[in-house]
Amino acid sequence: MSPSPTAALPTAPDRPKATAAASAASAAAPLQVRRIGIDTYRENVAFLRRDCPVYRAEGFQALSKVEVSANGTSILAVLNVVDALDHAALIGECELGLSEEAFAQLGLAEGAGVRIAHAEPPASIVSLKRKIGGERLDADELAAIVRDIATHRYSKIELAAFIVATSRFDLDRDEVLNLTAAMVAVGRRLDWKEKPVVDKHCIGGIPGNRTSMLVVPIVAAHGMLMPKTSSRAITSPAGTADTMECLATVELPFDRMEAIVRAHRACLAWGGRAELSPADDVLISVSRPLSVDSPGQMVASILSKKIAAGSTHLVLDIPLGPTAKVRHMDDAQRLKKLFEYVATRSGLQLDAVITDGRQPVGRGVGPALEARDVLKVLHNDPDAPADLRLKALRLAGRVLEFDPDLRGGDGFNVARDILDSGRALAKMSALIAAQGARPFDRHRPPLAPLTCEVTAAAAGTVIGIHNEQIARIARLAGAPKAQGAGVDLARKLGERVQAGEPLYRIYAASGSELQFARSAAAQDSGYTVGDAAAVPQVFAEL
Amino acid sequence: MSPSPTAALPTAPDRPKATAAASAASAAAPLQVRRIGIDTYRENVAFLRRDCPVYRAEGFQALSKVEVSANGTSILAVLNVVDALDHAALIGECELGLSEEAFAQLGLAEGAGVRIAHAEPPASIVSLKRKIGGERLDADELAAIVRDIATHRYSKIELAAFIVATSRFDLDRDEVLNLTAAMVAVGRRLDWKEKPVVDKHCIGGIPGNRTSMLVVPIVAAHGMLMPKTSSRAITSPAGTADTMECLATVELPFDRMEAIVRAHRACLAWGGRAELSPADDVLISVSRPLSVDSPGQMVASILSKKIAAGSTHLVLDIPLGPTAKVRHMDDAQRLKKLFEYVATRSGLQLDAVITDGRQPVGRGVGPALEARDVLKVLHNDPDAPADLRLKALRLAGRVLEFDPDLRGGDGFNVARDILDSGRALAKMSALIAAQGARPFDRHRPPLAPLTCEVTAAAAGTVIGIHNEQIARIARLAGAPKAQGAGVDLARKLGERVQAGEPLYRIYAASGSELQFARSAAAQDSGYTVGDAAAVPQVFAEL
Repeated sequence: MSPSPTAALPTAPDRPKATAAASAASAAAPLQVRRIGIDTYRENVAFLRRDCPVYRAEGFQALSKVEVSANGTSILAVLNVVDALDHAALIGECELGLSEEAFAQLGLAEGAGVRIAHAEPPASIVSLKRKIGGERLDADELAAIVRDIATHRYSKIELAAFIVATSRFDLDRDEVLNLTAAMVAVGRRLDWKEKPVVDKHCIGGIPGNRTSMLVVPIVAAHGMLMPKTSSRAITSPAGTADTMECLATVELPFDRMEAIVRAHRACLAWGGRAELSPADDVLISVSRPLSVDSPGQMVASILSKKIAAGSTHLVLDIPLGPTAKVRHMDDAQRLKKLFEYVATRSGLQLDAVITDGRQPVGRGVGPALEARDVLKVLHNDPDAPADLRLKALRLAGRVLEFDPDLRGGDGFNVARDILDSGRALAKMSALIAAQGARPFDRHRPPLAPLTCEVTAAAAGTVIGIHNEQIARIARLAGAPKAQGAGVDLARKLGERVQAGEPLYRIYAASGSELQFARSAAAQDSGYTVGDAAAVPQVFAEL
Repeated sequence: MSPSPTAALPTAPDRPKATAAASAASAAAPLQVRRIGIDTYRENVAFLRRDCPVYRAEGFQALSKVEVSANGTSILAVLNVVDALDHAALIGECELGLSEEAFAQLGLAEGAGVRIAHAEPPASIVSLKRKIGGERLDADELAAIVRDIATHRYSKIELAAFIVATSRFDLDRDEVLNLTAAMVAVGRRLDWKEKPVVDKHCIGGIPGNRTSMLVVPIVAAHGMLMPKTSSRAITSPAGTADTMECLATVELPFDRMEAIVRAHRACLAWGGRAELSPADDVLISVSRPLSVDSPGQMVASILSKKIAAGSTHLVLDIPLGPTAKVRHMDDAQRLKKLFEYVATRSGLQLDAVITDGRQPVGRGVGPALEARDVLKVLHNDPDAPADLRLKALRLAGRVLEFDPDLRGGDGFNVARDILDSGRALAKMSALIAAQGARPFDRHRPPLAPLTCEVTAAAAGTVIGIHNEQIARIARLAGAPKAQGAGVDLARKLGERVQAGEPLYRIYAASGSELQFARSAAAQDSGYTVGDAAAVPQVFAEL
C-alpha cells in the first residue's frame, strides 16, 4: 500500500462519524456462534450462510480470511459459505459456525455473540512472497512468519506456499538456524535445572524402528536424565507414543510427567500436550500430506522441539537406504552437517549417526507388534529381533558416552551390560508402573482378529523390503489407531524363501481395512525376491 | 514403490479369496450420500463421522484423499472428520456428506449408496515433486498434471505447491507453451468456422478498466467477429461480466450465445458456463488468494482460454504502473515476449500492448458505476471519462487493424468514426436487446444507498492513486455482488484538490460494508497528494 501522508481521513457528511461509530457499537455481536463438529485439522474454518442478513457472505468470498471477535478475544478463520438446503441448513441465518479447533480457540459458549470482519493478511505474507521470489529472509522476518503460523494466521494454501518456497536447500544454514530459534521462541520451553539432559531422535521413515523404548530405560538405568517425549504417528503406522501406549498411559499432565522424571530419571510420554513447538505442529499438518523433501524444515522442526524440551545433548539417527527418507550418502552427509551447524550454534551438543535404513527394524510393524518386539529385547528372549537389539545398544552407547565419566568407545559395552543384567527391564517396568501400567502379554500380544498371509511366488533371497510400502500396508490395515493392526514380517533382507512361504502376515481390525491392506499388497507386496548377490549394501556407521 | 517382479500376490489362507471378494461385494455401498450445503470453492470435500461403524475415519485421517464411488462413477475428495456433538450431528453414522461441488460432480440423488476407498495419490504428483525439486517438465508430464488438476484430483495444498513451484520464471518458455497446450486439451474448444475471430484481453489489476464493453461494439459494428466471453470478478471489484450484467443477461446457454454471435457478430457474455479451461478454473481458486507473481501461469491461463474460445487474433493489454500488476518496463517487456512466444507457436496472432496503468481508468469502480461510465462514452456524453474513451479507441484500433483491408495506422480513426457516429451505441443496444435487456438509466444509475465521502486533508496535486487500495475499498463496500456498490473517483492523477474537497465517494449496500470500506479508507485512502512535479511518468505505448 502506498503511503498517503497528505491524504485525508475519510469523513462522512451524511452520517457524522460519532453516530456511525455508535450505530456500529449497537449493532455489535450480531451473530451467534455455533460449534460445528468438523475436524479441519489445524485450520480454523468459519461457516457463514450465503443469505446472512447482517454480512454479505459473498462479499467475504469463499476462502477469504475473517477475524471472528467477541469481548476482546479474536481468532482468524478461513470462511466457508453455507447454502441453506431444502431439508435442512447447517447453521441459521444469523449464526456463525466454527470448526472444532476454531471453536476451542475462541473459547466462548455456544450462542455467544460474535462479530466478523475482513482479516488483514498477516503482515509476514510480504516476507513469504519475498521467499517465494527466491530472496533470503533475515531473523526478524522468519520470527514474524513463525509467530503468524503459530497463531493460525496462515491458511493451508499459504502454509503450502511457505513449505515449497523453503524446500530443497532453499533456506541457507543461517536461515535454518534463525527459523529454529523462531520456532523455539513461540513455544513453551522446559528447564530441567541440571545437565546433561539427553535425548535420542530418529528422522523417521523406517517402520518398526522403536529404539527409543530401549535406549531410554538403558540410559536412565545408568542414571542419566532422559525425559523423552515422543510424537504419535502422523503418516507412519506407529510412533513411539502409540507403541508405548500399549504398555502404559502416555498422555500425562506436565506436573505428573515432571514428578516421574524426578523419581526415575526418565519418562516415555506423548509430547503433544507440551505445546513445545506450536508453529511446527501447524506446519506439519500441511508438510506431511505434501511430503516435500525439505532438509531445512526437518532440521528446524526436530531441533526446535529438542531445545524447547530442555535437551542439552542429542543423538540423532539418520537412516540411509534405497527406500529410506535419505537415499544417498552425500545427501546424508549434507543433512548431518546442517544438523550439526544449527545444533552447535543453538547450544545443543549433537552426535548425528548415519544408520542402516535398508529395511524395517525388528519384525513387527504396528503398535502392539512393535511393543512385543521391544519387550522381547528387554526380557532377553532368545527370539527377540537381533537387529532391533543391536541398533538400540549402539544408539544407547552413543548417548551414554555423553557421560563425562565414560571412556570414549565404552558406551556399547555399558549399554549391553545394563540390558543383559535386566536393569533396563527393571527401569522400564518402573516407568510403566509410574505412568500407569496397561496389561500386555508379549507371548500373546493383543493382535487384531482379521488376518491374511502374503507369500512368495518363487524361491529366492529377499533383496528388497520397501519401507514406505510396508508402512502403507500396515496403515491401511488400521495401524496405529487399531493398536493390534499391522504387519508382522516373516523374512528380512538376505533371508531365503521358498515359493508359497510367507513373507509377512497382515493383521486388521475390520473387514474393510483387511480388504484395503490386502489390495495394496496385491498391487505391490513391498518385497523383492531375487539373487543373493543383489542384496543392497549400505555403508552406514551403524 | 519398488518393483517386486518375483514377489507373490497375497493369498488369504484363512479366508479364501473368492469368499473375501464376495463378502466385499455384499457389503457394497454401505454409506448413504448426503448433500452438505458448504461451498468449499472448487475443492471436493467429503464428511465422514469419526464413529462411522463401517470405515474407521481416523484410519483415513483428516485431509487424506478418498475415492467416493457408486455405480461405476467416482470422484476424489479430501476427507473431513465429523464428530457427533451433544445436540446435533452434521451427518448420521452411516452417511457420507459431500460439499456442493462434490455432490454435483458425483451426480447421485441424496440417500444413494456409496463406497469409499483410500485414493491413490494422482500419478502426476511424482512430476510435481520433480518440479518442486527445480527440474524441467516435459509435455507429457505437464499434460498429466493438468488432467489431474482438471478432474479435481489435486488438493488445495498440492495446487498451492504447483503454483509456487512454477512461479516467477520457474517455467521456461517451452514449459509455458506445453502447459498452455495441456490446458486447452482438457477443456472444450469452440470453432467459429471463419477467420479472423478477434478478441481483446487485459491482464488485470486496474480498477474501472472496462474497455471491452466499448471495443466489442466498435469492432462488431465494423463487421468483425468478436464473440467475447468474460469472467466475473474474483479479487477485483468488477469484471466485465459483472458490469455487463447491469445492462443485460450475461449467463447465456451456449446455443443462445452462438445464435447472438451469428446475428450480431459479437456478444458480451459470461464465460463461466463454457468450461473452456477447467484446469485453469481450479488453479485460479488457489492462485488468486495466494496472489503469487507467476508470468508462466498468467500466460498459460489467458492464452489457453483464448485458444479454447476459438480466437485467432488477440490484442493484449499489459498495464504498467507503480501499483499495477507489472511495475517495471523490463518486466513488461519480458512478459510481452513470453506471451508472443507462446501465442505464435500456438497459432494465435497476438498484438501485445503495454499501456498506462498508473491509476484506475474512468471514474467509477464497481459494476453500476462502471456501466454508467461505459454508457456515457457510447452516448458521447460531454462528461464521459476521456481516459476510458481514448484507451478503448486505441485498443479497438489495434483490433480493427487485424482486418486485412485496413491500412496499418488507420484503426484508431475508424474506431473513432464508429463511436462518434453512434454506430457503436447502436451495436451495443442490439447486443443488449439480444442478450435480454435490463433497465439502466446512465443519468440515474442504481447506486447503493449508503454513502460517505473521502476528502483531501490538504491542498495539492494528486500524485498517486493506488490501484489495489481503491479496488480493496470498493470490494469492502460490497462490489461486485452489490451491483451499486463501489467507489466514484472525483479526482484523477495530476488534478488539483483543495483541503476538504472530495477525493472519492464510497457507495455501500449495507451498514457493515460501509463501515468496512470506511475503516480501510481511514487507514489508507489510496490517494497521495503532493507537488505537481511528482506525478509519476509512464512511458507506455498507449
